Amino acid sequence: MTNTIYILNGPNLNRLGKREPHIYGHTTLAEVEALCRNTAGADVQIRFHQSNREYELIDWVHEATEEGAAGIIINPAAFTFTSIAILDALKQFDGPIIELHISNVHRREAIYHNSLVSKVATAVMAGLGPRGYATAVGAMQDLIAAKAQS
Amino acid sequence: MTNTIYILNGPNLNRLGKREPHIYGHTTLAEVEALCRNTAGADVQIRFHQSNREYELIDWVHEATEEGAAGIIINPAAFTFTSIAILDALKQFDGPIIELHISNVHRREAIYHNSLVSKVATAVMAGLGPRGYATAVGAMQDLIAAKAQS
Amino acid sequence: MTNTIYILNGPNLNRLGKREPHIYGHTTLAEVEALCRNTAGADVQIRFHQSNREYELIDWVHEATEEGAAGIIINPAAFTFTSIAILDALKQFDGPIIELHISNVHRREAIYHNSLVSKVATAVMAGLGPRGYATAVGAMQDLIAAKAQS
Amino acid sequence: MTNTIYILNGPNLNRLGKREPHIYGHTTLAEVEALCRNTAGADVQIRFHQSNREYELIDWVHEATEEGAAGIIINPAAFTFTSIAILDALKQFDGPIIELHISNVHRREAIYHNSLVSKVATAVMAGLGPRGYATAVGAMQDLIAAKAQS
Amino acid sequence: MTNTIYILNGPNLNRLGKREPHIYGHTTLAEVEALCRNTAGADVQIRFHQSNREYELIDWVHEATEEGAAGIIINPAAFTFTSIAILDALKQFDGPIIELHISNVHRREAIYHNSLVSKVATAVMAGLGPRGYATAVGAMQDLIAAKAQS
Amino acid sequence: MTNTIYILNGPNLNRLGKREPHIYGHTTLAEVEALCRNTAGADVQIRFHQSNREYELIDWVHEATEEGAAGIIINPAAFTFTSIAILDALKQFDGPIIELHISNVHRREAIYHNSLVSKVATAVMAGLGPRGYATAVGAMQDLIAAKAQS
Amino acid sequence: MTNTIYILNGPNLNRLGKREPHIYGHTTLAEVEALCRNTAGADVQIRFHQSNREYELIDWVHEATEEGAAGIIINPAAFTFTSIAILDALKQFDGPIIELHISNVHRREAIYHNSLVSKVATAVMAGLGPRGYATAVGAMQDLIAAKAQS
Amino acid sequence: MTNTIYILNGPNLNRLGKREPHIYGHTTLAEVEALCRNTAGADVQIRFHQSNREYELIDWVHEATEEGAAGIIINPAAFTFTSIAILDALKQFDGPIIELHISNVHRREAIYHNSLVSKVATAVMAGLGPRGYATAVGAMQDLIAAKAQS
Amino acid sequence: MTNTIYILNGPNLNRLGKREPHIYGHTTLAEVEALCRNTAGADVQIRFHQSNREYELIDWVHEATEEGAAGIIINPAAFTFTSIAILDALKQFDGPIIELHISNVHRREAIYHNSLVSKVATAVMAGLGPRGYATAVGAMQDLIAAKAQS
Amino acid sequence: MTNTIYILNGPNLNRLGKREPHIYGHTTLAEVEALCRNTAGADVQIRFHQSNREYELIDWVHEATEEGAAGIIINPAAFTFTSIAILDALKQFDGPIIELHISNVHRREAIYHNSLVSKVATAVMAGLGPRGYATAVGAMQDLIAAKAQS
Amino acid sequence: MTNTIYILNGPNLNRLGKREPHIYGHTTLAEVEALCRNTAGADVQIRFHQSNREYELIDWVHEATEEGAAGIIINPAAFTFTSIAILDALKQFDGPIIELHISNVHRREAIYHNSLVSKVATAVMAGLGPRGYATAVGAMQDLIAAKAQS
Amino acid sequence: MTNTIYILNGPNLNRLGKREPHIYGHTTLAEVEALCRNTAGADVQIRFHQSNREYELIDWVHEATEEGAAGIIINPAAFTFTSIAILDALKQFDGPIIELHISNVHRREAIYHNSLVSKVATAVMAGLGPRGYATAVGAMQDLIAAKAQS
Repeated sequence: MTNTIYILNGPNLNRLGKREPHIYGHTTLAEVEALCRNTAGADVQIRFHQSNREYELIDWVHEATEEGAAGIIINPAAFTFTSIAILDALKQFDGPIIELHISNVHRREAIYHNSLVSKVATAVMAGLGPRGYATAVGAMQDLIAAKAQS
Repeated sequence: MTNTIYILNGPNLNRLGKREPHIYGHTTLAEVEALCRNTAGADVQIRFHQSNREYELIDWVHEATEEGAAGIIINPAAFTFTSIAILDALKQFDGPIIELHISNVHRREAIYHNSLVSKVATAVMAGLGPRGYATAVGAMQDLIAAKAQS
Repeated sequence: MTNTIYILNGPNLNRLGKREPHIYGHTTLAEVEALCRNTAGADVQIRFHQSNREYELIDWVHEATEEGAAGIIINPAAFTFTSIAILDALKQFDGPIIELHISNVHRREAIYHNSLVSKVATAVMAGLGPRGYATAVGAMQDLIAAKAQS
Repeated sequence: MTNTIYILNGPNLNRLGKREPHIYGHTTLAEVEALCRNTAGADVQIRFHQSNREYELIDWVHEATEEGAAGIIINPAAFTFTSIAILDALKQFDGPIIELHISNVHRREAIYHNSLVSKVATAVMAGLGPRGYATAVGAMQDLIAAKAQS
Repeated sequence: MTNTIYILNGPNLNRLGKREPHIYGHTTLAEVEALCRNTAGADVQIRFHQSNREYELIDWVHEATEEGAAGIIINPAAFTFTSIAILDALKQFDGPIIELHISNVHRREAIYHNSLVSKVATAVMAGLGPRGYATAVGAMQDLIAAKAQS
Repeated sequence: MTNTIYILNGPNLNRLGKREPHIYGHTTLAEVEALCRNTAGADVQIRFHQSNREYELIDWVHEATEEGAAGIIINPAAFTFTSIAILDALKQFDGPIIELHISNVHRREAIYHNSLVSKVATAVMAGLGPRGYATAVGAMQDLIAAKAQS
Repeated sequence: MTNTIYILNGPNLNRLGKREPHIYGHTTLAEVEALCRNTAGADVQIRFHQSNREYELIDWVHEATEEGAAGIIINPAAFTFTSIAILDALKQFDGPIIELHISNVHRREAIYHNSLVSKVATAVMAGLGPRGYATAVGAMQDLIAAKAQS
Repeated sequence: MTNTIYILNGPNLNRLGKREPHIYGHTTLAEVEALCRNTAGADVQIRFHQSNREYELIDWVHEATEEGAAGIIINPAAFTFTSIAILDALKQFDGPIIELHISNVHRREAIYHNSLVSKVATAVMAGLGPRGYATAVGAMQDLIAAKAQS
Repeated sequence: MTNTIYILNGPNLNRLGKREPHIYGHTTLAEVEALCRNTAGADVQIRFHQSNREYELIDWVHEATEEGAAGIIINPAAFTFTSIAILDALKQFDGPIIELHISNVHRREAIYHNSLVSKVATAVMAGLGPRGYATAVGAMQDLIAAKAQS
Repeated sequence: MTNTIYILNGPNLNRLGKREPHIYGHTTLAEVEALCRNTAGADVQIRFHQSNREYELIDWVHEATEEGAAGIIINPAAFTFTSIAILDALKQFDGPIIELHISNVHRREAIYHNSLVSKVATAVMAGLGPRGYATAVGAMQDLIAAKAQS
Repeated sequence: MTNTIYILNGPNLNRLGKREPHIYGHTTLAEVEALCRNTAGADVQIRFHQSNREYELIDWVHEATEEGAAGIIINPAAFTFTSIAILDALKQFDGPIIELHISNVHRREAIYHNSLVSKVATAVMAGLGPRGYATAVGAMQDLIAAKAQS
Repeated sequence: MTNTIYILNGPNLNRLGKREPHIYGHTTLAEVEALCRNTAGADVQIRFHQSNREYELIDWVHEATEEGAAGIIINPAAFTFTSIAILDALKQFDGPIIELHISNVHRREAIYHNSLVSKVATAVMAGLGPRGYATAVGAMQDLIAAKAQS
């Protein structure tokens, strides 16, 4: 197992900071990436990606699986609720998976309630804002450490 | 606003460590409490409670509301899915609320899927194990700081 | 049959006046109690109770049943929608039952739509605000009188 | 705003007193009208109407809207559950609206459970029998007074 | 009890013979009326009506109820599935009620499946074409005779 | 095409007259058979059968199909709601099919509401009591005559 | 086929301009009618009607059918979602039918989502405001021309 | 493992014998307790409890779990259908669990159909009246013996 | 009334002991029959039957009805969930009916949850294993005795 | 394990070739049997059966189970969707099971969509016409060979 | 705000004219584009795109948002019903959005009924055929003009 | 019509052999391709593709349609259940379509039950493992031959 953590971001997150700021805030995705790298520290490899393309997210999950990455943090955005293909890709990954949402999706419209990804994620976090990425990186490091011990 | 954080735990969590350890692990609730206090640091008041009684959880939420507590972390356990009364109590609270679950409830039987509390929580975290309490305390401190700035 | 009317109030109503005043108004429960006593007049015994505890509401219904109380006005609050135990208790009561809600619950979120108590209540009143308690006391006196005549 | 209260009655209520008396009692609609006028007192204009025709109910709601009537008490009977057109008409009315049912519709067959009118009514009252009209007139006067104060 | 049979026809049946003849055939409503009168014979009063107006159907049911008519045959057409008001009117009628449909509504689109009127009808007949009116008159005479004997 | 009419009866109808007489009356199935033969007259062959065995009903429908019978009247009783196999058999039959029920099944419990057979029947009749068999025979003769003309 | 276009408007549209102007705007129905006549030009007969009465809408659809009108534009308002009788009437009309809504009904409450009329309409337009009537007249002329060519 | 059997009774059962006797009979809970003790014999410890308080039932289940009781017979009454907290408590218990109901709950209203406790019970018994407690004690002794042998 | 108890077993129970023993155990149906006869004692006639044929179960229920049997214990196996015909047969039986299942069907897949037979059974027992037959015989004797006294 | 393959056919398949040929084609079941025997070759025992009787299908599955047959190909026809008893029988069989349908049932009416048998079948094939039997025999031989190797 | 209108077309529309012409007609997408440019006139920039790739549609919506385009006309084809990602992209766009369908999707199979895009579109148009693009361009210009005035 | 067969594979199938081998086995997609080519023989052109990109699958279906390919075998994997766009593409193809799944999807979680593609496929095969590709190629050749004859 490598010490790499994948942080994958789904559609529309390239416009974070500009997109519906009353829901998502003003932080950009580049700032989020920097926050993640700072939180993780020098010993951890961060692979930080965003795509509006479902297949790129699938390919990155495959890559993580084949590399033996330590963990995957994924904010699948709209794909959370519609992509069985991403779910199927994540089922192949052995390490811990954190599903992350910037807003508390459970308070939004019904189409944002039934996450497919939750069925395979180790943990789910929603509603902490862009700052939640840092929390997720910390929690992922805990999960990796716990797994190493067990 | 005070610098107090309430950490409230619902039914059956008094038996944490002994209860279905393949799901909930071996850490006891007393150890969880210690973990929370360590994480929070000396400047924060932690009110850590557990009860199998719905009304005690309601009363503590009322108490937090009337004291102007800084935040509430609540693991309502089974009440998550059945207690509109706790939901109604939480609606009165002004500060950030984190709903916390030790296991990833979204992967369990259907009766554990529709959280009532999520409709009023600021953020939701599930599946990080007992260690998730520490993560939640850190995240709560971020939410309090963010609220203070806005 | 005694000339006693029970007026029972469910969870969170102890904070009436302070709780979400845009929905419930600024009148306190003590003021509501006074209003009820004034409306009822000297000839009627009013037993006015509030509890966040489901079992106390059950016990008061049992007490009313065993005393042969003239009627029960109940605002079960959140328990309206979740407590089959209160429903079962009310089924044992012979006299008229008025189910009362301060707000018009039918206009609120779906979780507030399916009253269990309505299945056993003689009458249902919702949306008249705190002043609705006085209306309910008057209506209860009409129901008691009508029952006496029949 | 005028001091007029509209009391509107839907289909089959012209046969009140003769219609299924085990459910609706023996009081006629003319007696109900007299009861309403007595309760309201001399200072209030009562416009009391019944129709089996949906459009007449709509037209009376329009009339009340254009006259600036003080309030509408409506027992839409069967139209409660089927007429979006009456719902749309009531949405245009500014004052308080009381939806009234003689029987407790919530205890009857499922087709009588989902009121469309409740979504726009200020208050709902059901199960008080023909005498409930008097209760509704009193409650309407309270609502009008409360609105005048606010 | 009189020896009168009401035969009531709902909306769009005035165009029978011209309306979707692949479903309803080429017989006109006037021919259907003649068929009914011939079948019934001289001793029976036939009140044969058609209306596109829900309230006229209600008024005729009221009239039949007040006159003590022997039976009602009703083809409520589209109102079968939407009019609780007609259902409520029919509930007041003491004699046998036959619900009649020219086509077999159970084979058509789902909106034609849930008859409200069936809940109060003595008998239901569907799919016999315009000729089914004669069958219904005969069956009604059997029901009336059977009731007279019991 | 032969001039034979099959009249098929499903499970429990062998106990007609003894079975729940408040619903089904006191007429026996033998009396019903005689009534059918009398109504049909000498020119028509009546094949009158009853079975508690689903396969016998299927076999009789096959027999009717292969013989080119003129029509089938079927009271499938409980199989109405559960037997896709009988539905599939009836789909093979070219002539008119009348589905007959002694009671008005639409007024009974929900398990008696969704007829499978109605999807393939030409006509449906319910609620006319045992006498409805005679009505069905007459209606079948009308359907056969109408088919012969078209 | 005549060169007449029927433009039919359902309940509450007589109050257009006064009714919930944040949804429907300030244009009156008379202004809408003028707009339609201007758009259509001199060669086209416009029959522009409004009614709160379901049967008048049915009668106008029958009239259009019997006259061989060129097309029907119908804004059935609340009847869109409740009137099978209007649906049945429209099924008899041979020419193009445009279902028109001033607001985008798909964004409103769930009771405004399931149009019955859409099942028989040629085209559906919603959300263009009062100006959408002109668009519909133009689109109807295109549909009539296309039909003439085919 | 001890030789103790817990017999736990939920809300409203303290009024057994007085409560809806047409459903539950005239036997009191004290008589039921005596019946259980007689049936069990001297070698078995019976802990017989009743409470209207959900938390007391949870606490007794915890107690049984910690003591290593031989079995639990539970009549959760209304909590059967609403208490995930009791379900969660029972999941921790290793021995056989019998869920017991005095009436046949499957024949009652729909709210009494979906038992949560059945998902974790070893066996379910309903409809044997108060005498069913003796049957349950016997059956529990069989289950304990069978477990001892396996 | 005779002193005969029918014990009827549905499809696949002929393979008891060989069939999925992790669910149903190793006891054969012949052993179950012996157990029943031993439990019942010499004074009771036991009619013990098994069939994979729905009609044989119906016929035995008819036989029990016509003989005036004292009670029926029925394990309808798969027919529990699909046979309205057996339900209809059981409705004709006057004495107590116990529905019995070897496994706790409520814990199995959803297709095993909705018993049709429960709607007519006096009592239901599930999950006691093959030994539950003895418990059912004892319980049936209690029900018969209770009925004799009332 | 024997080298026998059971090929079982459900109700109405005895009329294959004559039954709704636009769906099922003109091949008879005898021709299908010959096709199966030719495909299988001399080394394999084919037991080819058809029945309209559910219990015969169950008995053949039991027979296959007790003989240790190599595999079962079953076209349960209508029983696919209604027979839990056949499902329960198939659960006892150890070898591969192929569920076969002549038509693509997924494209037909909704009653043909939810196969019970699919829950226990190894493989499902639908829509290949009568020729699909040969395909199924080949596929079964592959499954048997694969099982022998594993 | 620019004077640019985006016209975006989803999957399979590249085959317009060749694809299911009985539903979509013979006009090609290139002809549709020409029609749009002609209708819009020289003062308006038309960006006309088609893609089978969800992400390209998202990217074009982002582009339109960042450029401050005047409006978006989108025919999302199959993505209408499945792409929350496109819905999320459209939520970020400030100007008017017209959702366009060539066929009347409301008359087609159920999978084509629940548009996700309708929840964010200003207006919806369906069933006008390829010519509807011209209607949509005209309607869009009206919406832009109306927005400019308000 | 060409003699080309397209074999299209959806997302995650590029990892066949490595992906969840307990479900999908150890055969790789390259081995599957070889198996297909061997089975088809030299006279048939095989176009074997895999993609995680929905649009590539759509494009290949378009290509097959425009080339007049003889048939399409498609294992759409996760897209089976989510892609109306692929369904729409397949609707344009004239030849036989076989939908293929390696595992028996009907036995898996509910999200794998409702195939969109089945609505347009000629035949469906599931559960035969990687070897099922060879079976599908053979069955496709049968379908092509049958079509050539008809």
